[in-house]
Amino acid sequence: MMNKEQYLDSLRKLKPVIHCNGRRITDVVDDPITRPHVNSAAMTYELAFQPEYEDLMTATSSLTGKKINRFTHLHQSTEDLVKKVKMLRMIAQKTGTCFQRCVGFDAMNATFIVTDKVDKACGTNYHQRFIDFVKYVQENDLMIAGSMTDPKGDRSKKPGQQVDPDMFVHIVERRDDGIVVRGAKAHQTGMVNSHAMLILPTTNLGPEDKDYAVACVIPVDAPGVVHIFGRQTNDGRRLQGDIDTGNSEYAIVGGETLTVLNDVFVPWNLVFMCGEYQFAQEYVEYFASYHRQNYGGCKAGVADVIIGATAAMAEYNGIPGASHIKDKLIEMIHLVETMYNCSIACSAEGHKTPAGNYYVNTLLANTVKLNCTRTMYEVSRLAHDIAGGFIATLPYEADLKSPETGHYIEKYFAASPKVTTENRIRMARLLENMTGGTALAESMHGAGSPQAMRVMLYRETNMEQKKELAKNLAKVKV
Amino acid sequence: MMNKEQYLDSLRKLKPVIHCNGRRITDVVDDPITRPHVNSAAMTYELAFQPEYEDLMTATSSLTGKKINRFTHLHQSTEDLVKKVKMLRMIAQKTGTCFQRCVGFDAMNATFIVTDKVDKACGTNYHQRFIDFVKYVQENDLMIAGSMTDPKGDRSKKPGQQVDPDMFVHIVERRDDGIVVRGAKAHQTGMVNSHAMLILPTTNLGPEDKDYAVACVIPVDAPGVVHIFGRQTNDGRRLQGDIDTGNSEYAIVGGETLTVLNDVFVPWNLVFMCGEYQFAQEYVEYFASYHRQNYGGCKAGVADVIIGATAAMAEYNGIPGASHIKDKLIEMIHLVETMYNCSIACSAEGHKTPAGNYYVNTLLANTVKLNCTRTMYEVSRLAHDIAGGFIATLPYEADLKSPETGHYIEKYFAASPKVTTENRIRMARLLENMTGGTALAESMHGAGSPQAMRVMLYRETNMEQKKELAKNLAKVKV
Amino acid sequence: MMNKEQYLDSLRKLKPVIHCNGRRITDVVDDPITRPHVNSAAMTYELAFQPEYEDLMTATSSLTGKKINRFTHLHQSTEDLVKKVKMLRMIAQKTGTCFQRCVGFDAMNATFIVTDKVDKACGTNYHQRFIDFVKYVQENDLMIAGSMTDPKGDRSKKPGQQVDPDMFVHIVERRDDGIVVRGAKAHQTGMVNSHAMLILPTTNLGPEDKDYAVACVIPVDAPGVVHIFGRQTNDGRRLQGDIDTGNSEYAIVGGETLTVLNDVFVPWNLVFMCGEYQFAQEYVEYFASYHRQNYGGCKAGVADVIIGATAAMAEYNGIPGASHIKDKLIEMIHLVETMYNCSIACSAEGHKTPAGNYYVNTLLANTVKLNCTRTMYEVSRLAHDIAGGFIATLPYEADLKSPETGHYIEKYFAASPKVTTENRIRMARLLENMTGGTALAESMHGAGSPQAMRVMLYRETNMEQKKELAKNLAKVKV
Amino acid sequence: MMNKEQYLDSLRKLKPVIHCNGRRITDVVDDPITRPHVNSAAMTYELAFQPEYEDLMTATSSLTGKKINRFTHLHQSTEDLVKKVKMLRMIAQKTGTCFQRCVGFDAMNATFIVTDKVDKACGTNYHQRFIDFVKYVQENDLMIAGSMTDPKGDRSKKPGQQVDPDMFVHIVERRDDGIVVRGAKAHQTGMVNSHAMLILPTTNLGPEDKDYAVACVIPVDAPGVVHIFGRQTNDGRRLQGDIDTGNSEYAIVGGETLTVLNDVFVPWNLVFMCGEYQFAQEYVEYFASYHRQNYGGCKAGVADVIIGATAAMAEYNGIPGASHIKDKLIEMIHLVETMYNCSIACSAEGHKTPAGNYYVNTLLANTVKLNCTRTMYEVSRLAHDIAGGFIATLPYEADLKSPETGHYIEKYFAASPKVTTENRIRMARLLENMTGGTALAESMHGAGSPQAMRVMLYRETNMEQKKELAKNLAKVKV
Repeated sequence: MMNKEQYLDSLRKLKPVIHCNGRRITDVVDDPITRPHVNSAAMTYELAFQPEYEDLMTATSSLTGKKINRFTHLHQSTEDLVKKVKMLRMIAQKTGTCFQRCVGFDAMNATFIVTDKVDKACGTNYHQRFIDFVKYVQENDLMIAGSMTDPKGDRSKKPGQQVDPDMFVHIVERRDDGIVVRGAKAHQTGMVNSHAMLILPTTNLGPEDKDYAVACVIPVDAPGVVHIFGRQTNDGRRLQGDIDTGNSEYAIVGGETLTVLNDVFVPWNLVFMCGEYQFAQEYVEYFASYHRQNYGGCKAGVADVIIGATAAMAEYNGIPGASHIKDKLIEMIHLVETMYNCSIACSAEGHKTPAGNYYVNTLLANTVKLNCTRTMYEVSRLAHDIAGGFIATLPYEADLKSPETGHYIEKYFAASPKVTTENRIRMARLLENMTGGTALAESMHGAGSPQAMRVMLYRETNMEQKKELAKNLAKVKV
Repeated sequence: MMNKEQYLDSLRKLKPVIHCNGRRITDVVDDPITRPHVNSAAMTYELAFQPEYEDLMTATSSLTGKKINRFTHLHQSTEDLVKKVKMLRMIAQKTGTCFQRCVGFDAMNATFIVTDKVDKACGTNYHQRFIDFVKYVQENDLMIAGSMTDPKGDRSKKPGQQVDPDMFVHIVERRDDGIVVRGAKAHQTGMVNSHAMLILPTTNLGPEDKDYAVACVIPVDAPGVVHIFGRQTNDGRRLQGDIDTGNSEYAIVGGETLTVLNDVFVPWNLVFMCGEYQFAQEYVEYFASYHRQNYGGCKAGVADVIIGATAAMAEYNGIPGASHIKDKLIEMIHLVETMYNCSIACSAEGHKTPAGNYYVNTLLANTVKLNCTRTMYEVSRLAHDIAGGFIATLPYEADLKSPETGHYIEKYFAASPKVTTENRIRMARLLENMTGGTALAESMHGAGSPQAMRVMLYRETNMEQKKELAKNLAKVKV
Repeated sequence: MMNKEQYLDSLRKLKPVIHCNGRRITDVVDDPITRPHVNSAAMTYELAFQPEYEDLMTATSSLTGKKINRFTHLHQSTEDLVKKVKMLRMIAQKTGTCFQRCVGFDAMNATFIVTDKVDKACGTNYHQRFIDFVKYVQENDLMIAGSMTDPKGDRSKKPGQQVDPDMFVHIVERRDDGIVVRGAKAHQTGMVNSHAMLILPTTNLGPEDKDYAVACVIPVDAPGVVHIFGRQTNDGRRLQGDIDTGNSEYAIVGGETLTVLNDVFVPWNLVFMCGEYQFAQEYVEYFASYHRQNYGGCKAGVADVIIGATAAMAEYNGIPGASHIKDKLIEMIHLVETMYNCSIACSAEGHKTPAGNYYVNTLLANTVKLNCTRTMYEVSRLAHDIAGGFIATLPYEADLKSPETGHYIEKYFAASPKVTTENRIRMARLLENMTGGTALAESMHGAGSPQAMRVMLYRETNMEQKKELAKNLAKVKV
Repeated sequence: MMNKEQYLDSLRKLKPVIHCNGRRITDVVDDPITRPHVNSAAMTYELAFQPEYEDLMTATSSLTGKKINRFTHLHQSTEDLVKKVKMLRMIAQKTGTCFQRCVGFDAMNATFIVTDKVDKACGTNYHQRFIDFVKYVQENDLMIAGSMTDPKGDRSKKPGQQVDPDMFVHIVERRDDGIVVRGAKAHQTGMVNSHAMLILPTTNLGPEDKDYAVACVIPVDAPGVVHIFGRQTNDGRRLQGDIDTGNSEYAIVGGETLTVLNDVFVPWNLVFMCGEYQFAQEYVEYFASYHRQNYGGCKAGVADVIIGATAAMAEYNGIPGASHIKDKLIEMIHLVETMYNCSIACSAEGHKTPAGNYYVNTLLANTVKLNCTRTMYEVSRLAHDIAGGFIATLPYEADLKSPETGHYIEKYFAASPKVTTENRIRMARLLENMTGGTALAESMHGAGSPQAMRVMLYRETNMEQKKELAKNLAKVKV
């Protein structure tokens, strides 16, 4: 296992091409725009060495028997699935935001299942190849970006029907030593501070989409890979101090990129699907369900911080005991624990796959994320309600620090005598950071948009059995 | 274990005093008002003998090592807690309503914990006495009514402050051979078809309320016990046929009574608390949390039937595929599975008590029931939406069967040619039964009113820790 | 204008054929099943003679210049539209339920608009004929049932495509002296205590549906008319006393019927549409929009009573001042006044039609009813929350009055010393009556089901203009 | 009346002291941070000269009989109140954000009422003095900032109890020629581009708070006035181009300031309250109710743009016709029109005050804003849902324009062939701008926080009358 420093050093050795705001980011570890995202991911390394979190943060490899970082683990029990959720909540309580590493974690577990299925059906040998890859990841404690979402172009068309064939990643050449892929992956969480990306399909495919059925691993700095770093809410504040960013240590969400693959070569030992289009849909579902499982963990942890910040703001404002404030805090708790319950339940109700790892209950996992798309908006709304209009009109950090205006701000934004004005502002900026813009949109679309969950909920429900139940009671014979 | 017939026979041997609508009910098994409630409870006996439900419906006694009906079991693992939830959902899918037996089940597990605690603290010997009682229940497969809710009188006053001291059950005499209790218990689910009731306190108590700290068992037909049967929505229809009741086999909710205790004598071997007021509050909390755990089981099962009936109605109306209907069915599924998740999660996250049985996670158990108080109203609303105005204006069963009007009804309430008008009406009547009046109110107040859960959610949350998390991220030092 | 007694006398002179629960109702005024519905409608006559309500309850006829009951009025201004809403709220506060007479009121105003349009387009003379009819209604102060909803059969098929051609009312014969119609109208509010029904189409029609394009007036006791009275929640209690019905004076909703038209002859002077299918859709929309306007009036009045009953229950329980109770009452007020606002706004924003009467703003009128389908469920849920589990398990009136059990009920259901137990029970029964079953379903489907409003909201919105606004601000040229 | 250019020129003549991000803003008209806010306010001048908006944008002065900008008008009818709402919606459709001028408009109408009341009760002569001021405003078409919200310090304490007496604006000296005031006003909308501010109290006051009972007018550049400009979401993007700001022309909300009053002198002719503490509470309520009236106007206009942008995004993504998208758009429309209805209704139900101007219905006005605090969050949530994850991860404008990366972005963010990638990004940036951070928080707290409305709703409801209604129907005598 790597510790935090080793992780940072390992990133310093990579040379990914990253564009951001018209310039190149050459040092992800120390660039003020990417540094907080790196810090978040680094937390997954750091906590693995803290004894009190050992049980959650580490596991025993089913492949090597060695102690590994849980983020590289293949789940061996429902207990492992539950621990994943608890680990995510615990880390999020410390970062207040996404720490990115679950995407690759989920992609690996999904790929483990699918390569086994494909091999059994098609006589291929992806599974052993993938096991070798996972061993390597476990031993080197790598951070893998899970790369699913293609740009998708015209949403009314399948990959093969698009005007531009590159709107979904596809194989443009099959060679003796490997394949060449082209396309791009959008919304790539944690990409710039990962070691490699695990490419997988993003939608169900038909026979005409064969070249789009591709899964493989590509180093983040492989030739032909270009990353364009996305713009986040209030990103510019990172260049100007530490108060106004709200969460200066860990930023917001996962530092998403558009990652372009310009005819990138992948050797066969890193190719795990190559044309088996019939398995694309279930591949997507395995990954998506594992990933939806997470949101009652990490978002509950994020929400714990929001609840705490809101309670602190009420205290700073001088009215922690008002009944309507307590009632709103309870509502936030209720919503968040409900979301958490869904993650725990879909884990506890998981089952062993034919490949040997454990998989969540699909129906229940889809409720997790659908709740999240509502809960986080409601929690943010209630946080705004209690915090006060203040969070929308706060002065600039530079004016707080300026001798000309700082004393006015100190004086007039003072509230409860128990807190300094600066601390009150810091808490408000944290809330601002966590309850608007990018953070909300991620709660909506991370791990798939609501309609995707709704389709799954319907598909996973046995409606005929439910109708039978009703007919029995209504004494309806047909 | 008793089977269904043995249960019915056992009821026939009891002679409880039951008043209902100005008359006496002398035969609960065959009286048209109580019969469907008996049928619901009987399902807990019947299913225990069906091989496919053996794993859910039965358990191995921790006291005797024998196979017992799960409803008499002391939970021995979190798996037992999860199985309880699944058992409740499964039975509710078959009855479409409350089958009443969980109340005593929960009261027994709570009493097992509390008697152990009291004995350790006070040197009493309630626990062994209670174990003897549970053995007897297990061997005779008795149905025990859990009797918690006192009438409470003026809600702004504690038991000892009430104008009438009998508003909470209390000890009026301590004798050599036992105690004499007076008072009443309201909303007594399943009482008239139980064998005995397990009395426990309903609120926290102070030293001045010592006589109100009483737990004991009383046969339903003990001298001095009077039951007044509550009136339910559309109860009169049970006397008039089988269509209009909607669920003629299993009725609505649990046939609740006001059970009056007129100076009832209880021998010491059936007394499990007698004055230890300091333990009243946690007794209430143990019972309530166990009982709140259930609602994502039984109400999810009830809701499965509602969803099925709604889907069937859409089909009968000729428009099962309309996108807005599918979307509403999905919303119902989402809400119901979310509620179910809460029950599964609070069970999977349960823990062993010092007494040796397993107890749910209190925080999570309180989210279950708070969700239920919203979910069942929303599910009912969506069911009404899809079913159509029809459910509010349907003609009488007698008119459907009358030669003068039956042909009009047959003709004009016909819809899809795939279903007869009578069956369409039957399905609508089932929905009417399950989505209004008594059924809704029970979803609100069974296992406690929403405010009770809210108080618990706040108490069980570590708000200081959450504030610390926020302060760390905001870099606030104080 | 008729007063209450004259109205009752006028009903006694009619001889409608009414079937109910296997028997004939021969005297709607005094039959215990229909009497409370008659009382509700009678309120529209009674209040018209009370000076304090004269401004709301009466108007000056635009046809005769005489003072008339507002329910027979053709709206002459937006002020008239606003007064209609206020009148409805005021009456509903006194009846706690539907008083039925608005349906015909709305049907008349819609028919006034449509007959004018049809005449102008087709050279017919329906409009003058209809004016003569309205004059007659005004002078005799008749109660007209608005008869729109056909049984509809298979919802996936148009009238002409149904297996049974009678699923929508249609013309089966055109004679020199009039027409003969066949079919039925379902959910007919107030029918049995109206003088006549105004038949209108229920859906848009094509050229093949010409015979279904029919509007006409039929006396409720015309030969061939058969009424089958619908069964309401807890209707049987009306035969057993006055407490358990909750609202013994005024019942629930509008005493809906299935009204069968067996080849009923209608003379030409009472025919207002006969084949002009092209106008069916807008006819439906005019009627529906007028009718949806009402719900923020009458349902707000009903909800005022629910709010008052809930506040009273909190008081009777001894805890009127608890902050969570006050907060829930506020939420109820907020929801109800919001719904009322919609009715006021769609009225104030009304406009004059080419026929000369005033019509509501269609877009806004559709928000009224869509809100109602949510508001009344939420209001009922909050009422249940505050009132307590009591409303689901109350004893029978007969047991309260029985010497054997009455004293127990008096004793144990006593709460605040300020109220008798009987009064506490009465209030709970009122709440039970107003918040479940038939009452809720009517809030959902009266004046059309939610999807009907949603379709109208989309149609009435200028989405292209909204997109233009966005493009201007985003500086998007195409 | 001034036109847009005259307004800009008039601002250029003022010399307010404005601090922002550690520097001074010396030219509000052309500084990139303030310019878009100026543009929004300028719209209120520009549209007044457009014939199609003349009826909404202008009025006839009740004081001079001259044509004036409506924003300087004293409402003379409920029609004026309705026109105000329609004007606000129309302007917001053009700016997509706050145009600031209603605050002073509302403050003037409230002051007109209160000065009349105070004079009548106390024999003062504020009212005529205020009329002279309004005439001056009307003739010079000034923009007046309404300055109510004090910093408030410790929320558990009244003004006179604060540790620092300056937490509420107060009189520090009474001189022959005027008064001297000290304190600050927070969240001052439109302040830097107004001509003067109208100070009014922010809370109810007791006899000990006499010095806090002050209303007066102060030029924005009076000696002793210091403005500190608040930081908004993504404000830094204004310095970097026009795409990423989303709404580059008109910014977000109202450019709020903390405005410090350092012993500012105010001559008597501009003092309208000076010690009459008994009128503070109703002053606040008049202003607040007028201001809450607005939100169903301006926010509905803002939401119209959001709905349009969302519909456009669905189109750009290639799936405008998907049923779930249409359904969500309908939900947005429903919510927005409901909010609008509340504004229309509270206006139509307004009444004449003893001072002669018209005032809204207080109860109904408070529902407007309470709805807004939910509606705008829900509308934003639905907009995010439809727009896609894209809005959280979009690349920087600089990268779109860079020759190195622009072609990748063009290629991979292309969707429907009907739109360019840049336009798709522009639309997404507009949505991002309008649905997060500052914009949401303003919907919550502008015109008061939700709890303020809830208190008013309860106070304005006649609960005793509602209880009477229920008692009548339940036949409860006491």
